[in-house]
Amino acid sequence: MTKSKISQEGLTTGPFPNSKKIYESGQIHNIKVAHRSIELSDTKTSEGEIFQNPPVTVYDTSGPYTDPDYAVNLEKGLPKIREQWIKERDDIQELEQLSSEYGQMRLADKKLDHLRFDHVSTMPLKAKDGRCVTQYYYACQGIITPEMEYVAIRENQQIQQIQESYREHRGQCYGAQIPEKEVTPEFVRDEIAAGRAFLPANINHPETEPMIIGRNFLVKINANIGNSPTTSSIEEEVEKAVWAVRWGADTIMDLSTGDNIHETREWIVRNSPVPVGTVPLYQALEKVNGDVEKLSWEIYRDTLIEQAEQGVDYFTIHAGLLWKHIPSTIKRVTGIVSRGGSIMAKWMLYHHKENFLYTHFDEICDILAAYDVGVSLGDGLRPGSIADANDRAQFGELEALGELTQKARDKYVQVIIEGPGHVPMQGIKENMDLQLEHCKEAPFYTLGPLTTDIAPGYDHITSAIGGAMIAWHGTAMLCYVTPKEHLGLPDKHDVKTGVITYKLAAHAADVAKGFPGAQFRDFAMSKARFEFRWKDQFSLALDPETAMQYHDKTLPDEGYKSSHFCSMCGEKFCSMKSTMEVRDLAKKLEDKKELFKESGGELYM
Amino acid sequence: MTKSKISQEGLTTGPFPNSKKIYESGQIHNIKVAHRSIELSDTKTSEGEIFQNPPVTVYDTSGPYTDPDYAVNLEKGLPKIREQWIKERDDIQELEQLSSEYGQMRLADKKLDHLRFDHVSTMPLKAKDGRCVTQYYYACQGIITPEMEYVAIRENQQIQQIQESYREHRGQCYGAQIPEKEVTPEFVRDEIAAGRAFLPANINHPETEPMIIGRNFLVKINANIGNSPTTSSIEEEVEKAVWAVRWGADTIMDLSTGDNIHETREWIVRNSPVPVGTVPLYQALEKVNGDVEKLSWEIYRDTLIEQAEQGVDYFTIHAGLLWKHIPSTIKRVTGIVSRGGSIMAKWMLYHHKENFLYTHFDEICDILAAYDVGVSLGDGLRPGSIADANDRAQFGELEALGELTQKARDKYVQVIIEGPGHVPMQGIKENMDLQLEHCKEAPFYTLGPLTTDIAPGYDHITSAIGGAMIAWHGTAMLCYVTPKEHLGLPDKHDVKTGVITYKLAAHAADVAKGFPGAQFRDFAMSKARFEFRWKDQFSLALDPETAMQYHDKTLPDEGYKSSHFCSMCGEKFCSMKSTMEVRDLAKKLEDKKELFKESGGELYM
Repeated sequence: MTKSKISQEGLTTGPFPNSKKIYESGQIHNIKVAHRSIELSDTKTSEGEIFQNPPVTVYDTSGPYTDPDYAVNLEKGLPKIREQWIKERDDIQELEQLSSEYGQMRLADKKLDHLRFDHVSTMPLKAKDGRCVTQYYYACQGIITPEMEYVAIRENQQIQQIQESYREHRGQCYGAQIPEKEVTPEFVRDEIAAGRAFLPANINHPETEPMIIGRNFLVKINANIGNSPTTSSIEEEVEKAVWAVRWGADTIMDLSTGDNIHETREWIVRNSPVPVGTVPLYQALEKVNGDVEKLSWEIYRDTLIEQAEQGVDYFTIHAGLLWKHIPSTIKRVTGIVSRGGSIMAKWMLYHHKENFLYTHFDEICDILAAYDVGVSLGDGLRPGSIADANDRAQFGELEALGELTQKARDKYVQVIIEGPGHVPMQGIKENMDLQLEHCKEAPFYTLGPLTTDIAPGYDHITSAIGGAMIAWHGTAMLCYVTPKEHLGLPDKHDVKTGVITYKLAAHAADVAKGFPGAQFRDFAMSKARFEFRWKDQFSLALDPETAMQYHDKTLPDEGYKSSHFCSMCGEKFCSMKSTMEVRDLAKKLEDKKELFKESGGELYM
Repeated sequence: MTKSKISQEGLTTGPFPNSKKIYESGQIHNIKVAHRSIELSDTKTSEGEIFQNPPVTVYDTSGPYTDPDYAVNLEKGLPKIREQWIKERDDIQELEQLSSEYGQMRLADKKLDHLRFDHVSTMPLKAKDGRCVTQYYYACQGIITPEMEYVAIRENQQIQQIQESYREHRGQCYGAQIPEKEVTPEFVRDEIAAGRAFLPANINHPETEPMIIGRNFLVKINANIGNSPTTSSIEEEVEKAVWAVRWGADTIMDLSTGDNIHETREWIVRNSPVPVGTVPLYQALEKVNGDVEKLSWEIYRDTLIEQAEQGVDYFTIHAGLLWKHIPSTIKRVTGIVSRGGSIMAKWMLYHHKENFLYTHFDEICDILAAYDVGVSLGDGLRPGSIADANDRAQFGELEALGELTQKARDKYVQVIIEGPGHVPMQGIKENMDLQLEHCKEAPFYTLGPLTTDIAPGYDHITSAIGGAMIAWHGTAMLCYVTPKEHLGLPDKHDVKTGVITYKLAAHAADVAKGFPGAQFRDFAMSKARFEFRWKDQFSLALDPETAMQYHDKTLPDEGYKSSHFCSMCGEKFCSMKSTMEVRDLAKKLEDKKELFKESGGELYM
C-alpha cells in the first residue's frame, strides 16, 4: 500500500438535506441522467387535513459526490460515463504517446512522480485522420448523440411531474426561441447545429456529465478556480472544484498560474463532473517565465495540444484583439483589463506583428476539432470600468470575434463569445444586441457585468445585477464574480458566495425568460413559506446551510422549525399567520355571501 | 451629576478614512449643507510627473456623527438645525401639553422616568389654526423654503467642481425629467408642488437634515430598525439608527413592536439626522395587547397624534386595502404578507366593516397636515411570492392608492406610494408604469422587489437586482432587505450589509438614469484602480473597511498598498500593470507612425 498522494480530508461530499440523487433513463440511448430530488413534508391544514407535497426535481451539477452510494476516490478519478459513447462512434484513435513536447517532458520527469495523477497512464484520444468528432459536426449530420439526449433530459428537470395547480407567469425572452413545453433531444441537436448552443465534450474528458450552453436553455454559470504563484496546493484546487460544483457551478475554469499547473490540471479534470475551461496563454507565459517578448506560436501551439489531450473542454483564446484596436485603448480610463488581452497587446507591440492567435486561427481550430475542444473567444478589450463600457475598442473587437466565429464554424469547432465586464444598466441591452448581430447568435458568456465601480467587497452583487439582466436579454452563461474581485484571491467561502449569488441571478433570468418549469421551485418555496414548513424552506433553498443557520441564530430550538412565525416579526405580527386567520374568518363568512356581494366582491372567485 | 440614562459605548462615530465633513453655504437662505469630501493622493506617472487628484464630494447621510468637531451626546440629542427656519415661518404654535392621551399618560408615569429622553420637556409644535405648514403647501405657494434650498445643494454634491476631462454616458430615464446640469432650489420647489417629490420635514423633528424623495432626484434608500418583543434595548436601537445612517440610509423606519415603543422612538427621533418613518398601526395594536378585534379608530387616531408630536416624518398607512379586495387574496400562494395589511383584513372581517383607515382618511390627512407628516400609502396586498406578483389583488389596491393620493393632495399632505415585494424581472416595468399612471407620479417606494424566491439568506441580493431595475425605471426610494429576510431579525452586521447592498443598487440606478455627476465617483474609483492607488480605492468605496480588509487578507504589509498588483492575479499576470507597459511601449512607437498607418490605426486618437 503506497502513501496516498492526495488528502480527501477537506472535501465536502454527501447529499443535501432531504435530497436524494435520482437517475432518469434515456429513451434513445442507454444513459442515466442525474437529478437531485428534494423531498418535502406534508401540508397540514387548520382543519387537520393532510396533503402530500410531491418532491421537487432540480438541476444537479454536483456529480457523484452527492451520491451516498458512491465511494469518492480522488486518486481514481470519477467514473467515465461518456467512455462507451465516445468509443462507439468509432471515429477516434488512442494515441501511443502524448503529442505535446511539454506533456512528454513532464511525464518523463521522475521528480514529479509524487505529484502525478496515476491513471494518467491511459493514453489520450484523438480524432482519426479525416474524421471530425465535435458535437457540432454530429449535430449538422443530423445525429442525436447520447450527450444531446442527456442534456435534454437534464434541462427538463422532470417537468412532466409538476402538478397542474401550478401556474406560470409568461416570460419575456427578447427573441429567444425557448421551447414552450419541454426540451427534446432533437431540439438540442438543432440548436447545436445552428451554432446557438455549445455542448462542451472533449473526448478526453469522459468524466463530464453533459450540459449545454445556449440562449434557449437554462442559464449557466462558471466558477473560476486555480492556484496562484503564492498560494494553494493541488489538494486545495481539487477541493475548490468539488466545492464549486456542489453549490452549482455548471463549468469551472482552471486559471492556475503557479507551480505544477500541468499536474494540478490533471487532478482537476479527472475529478470534475463538469466541463473544464482554461486560458492556455497563461501556461504558455509560465513556460517562458513570464517574459511576454519570448512568447511564440510554437509554445502556444504545444500548450493547446497538451491541454486538449488532458481533457480541457474549452479554451479562452484572445484572437480578436488586433493591431488596429490598440490605439483606441490608449485613452481609456482603465486600458486593457483582460489578462490575456494585455499580454497579447504587449506581444504585438514588442514584435510589431499582428496577434499570432489571429494569424494562426485556422490552425488552432484544426487542433481543437480533433478533440472537440470548444473555443471561447476572449474579449481582450472588455471594459474594466463603467467609463470604458461600450466604446470603440470593445465593439471593434466584437466585430472581429464575429469574423472568427464563422472561421471556427467552418471547421466544425464549437464557439462561445466572451463579454464584459463593467457596463452601466442602460448599456446592457446594446451589448447583447450587437453580440447577437456580429456573432451570429453564438452563445454569449459574460463576466457580470458590474453595474457600478464603487462597491469593492460587494462586486458579486454589483455584477449579479448586471448578470441577471444580461442573462434575461440572452446571455447563455455567466462567469461568476466573488466578493474579493479587484481585491485579492478568493478563498473557499468567497467561491461559495460567488456561486450562490450567480446561481440566483441565473435563475432570476430563467424565470424572466419563461423557461418551462423554472418558476416551480419558487412556487414550492413560497408554498412552504406560507405553510410554515421551515425545514422544506431550507431544503429548497440554494444554500440550505446558511438559511437554517440564519433562522436558528435567534430561534435555535427544534420546536421553532414548526412554529407559525419567526423572530423577524414575532408571533403577534406575523403576516402569514394573520393571513391564515383571515382565511379561516373568510371561510366562516361563506354563508353570508350577501355581505360580500354588497361590497361588490366575491369571497371565492 | 446624575447617572447617564444611555450608554454611548456601542456607537460608531468619527470620520471615514481620508474623508472630512465640509459645509456649503446657501445662496438664498442662511444654511450650511453637509457633504463628505474624500481626499485622494496624487497620480505619479512612470516618467515621474505628478498630478493632483481633486477631492470627491459625495452625498452624506451620516449627520454630525462623522464630524470630529461635534461632541456626540445622545442625552441632548442632535442640534436642531431646522428650529429657526420653522419658527421664522410664523405659522406654528407651541402646545401647552401633549395632545395625545397616551403621550400624556406615559409622561405622567414616574416609573418611566429612567427611560425617558430628558429634553422631551420641550412641548410639541403644531400648525396655528387655519394655517398649513407642509412643504407641499409652501411649494404650491411658490415659496422656496430653506429645506428646499438645502436639498438642492445636497443633491448636487458640488458637481460644479468636477473636472472637465470626465465624460458621462448618456442616461436612459423612461420619461423622468432629470435636470440636465444641476438641481436648482426652484426645481426642487416645482417637483414638490407637482407632487412628484416628497420632502419629509415634520416640524417636530428639527434635527433632520433635509432630503428629498422623487423620481427626478438621486435614488434614496430606507433601513428598517426597531426592537421586537424578544430582543434589544433602547441603546441598541439608537445604535442601529446611527449605524444605518453611517453606511448610507437616507431614512430609517422604526418598526418597534416590543416594550416601551414610545420612549424608544423619542430617543431615536432626537438622535436621527435623517427622517424617521413608522407604521402607527403596530403601536396601536400593542395598545390593545395584540387583539386585532379591539383595534379602533380612536386608538389609532391617538397614536397618530402621539407620534406626530414626537417628530415622526412619515407614516405608513394601509388605507387602500378595501373589503372588495379581500376575496382576490384567498387563492394566492402567499396570501397577505404585509403585516399592516393582514391586520386590517382581519379587523374588517371581524367587524364586517370597511377599513377604518379608508373611511377616516380625510381626518387622517388633517392630522398629518398640522405637523407636516407625510403619508406613505402602504401596499397591504403586495405580493409575497413571485407567484402572486402583478395579480388582481395587488393592482386593485394600487388603484385605490391612486384615489387616496388625490385626497391627500387636496389637504396638502405629502404622499409616497409603497410597492412590492416579490416580482420577477419581466414584471417590474408594469409595476412602475401602472404606479405612475394610477398615482399621478407620486414617488414610488418599493421593498426590493425580490426577483426569485429560492435564495433565503441571500435575499438582499435577489432584491437588489429588482431594486436596481425598478429604481432605474423610476422608483424614488428603495426599502432595504437584509440577508435575514424571511428568516429572522437582522443584527447590526445584517443592517450594514443591507444598507451597502441597497446603496450600490440605488447608485447603479442613478448612473443608468444619467443623473448629473452620478458617474464621477465610479470614474474616480476606476482611475485610482488603474493607477494602483489602493488607499484611494478604499476611501472611495461604499464600505472602505471591508474593501481594505479583503485586500489585506492576502497582502497585509503596508508596502502592498502601493504595489502594482494584488493577490488575485499576482504581479506577472496583472493586466493593469501590463497595460501600463503597453502604453509605454506605444509611446515609444510614436515616431514610427507609419507602422500604425499601415495597419489602418492611429495610436493617439
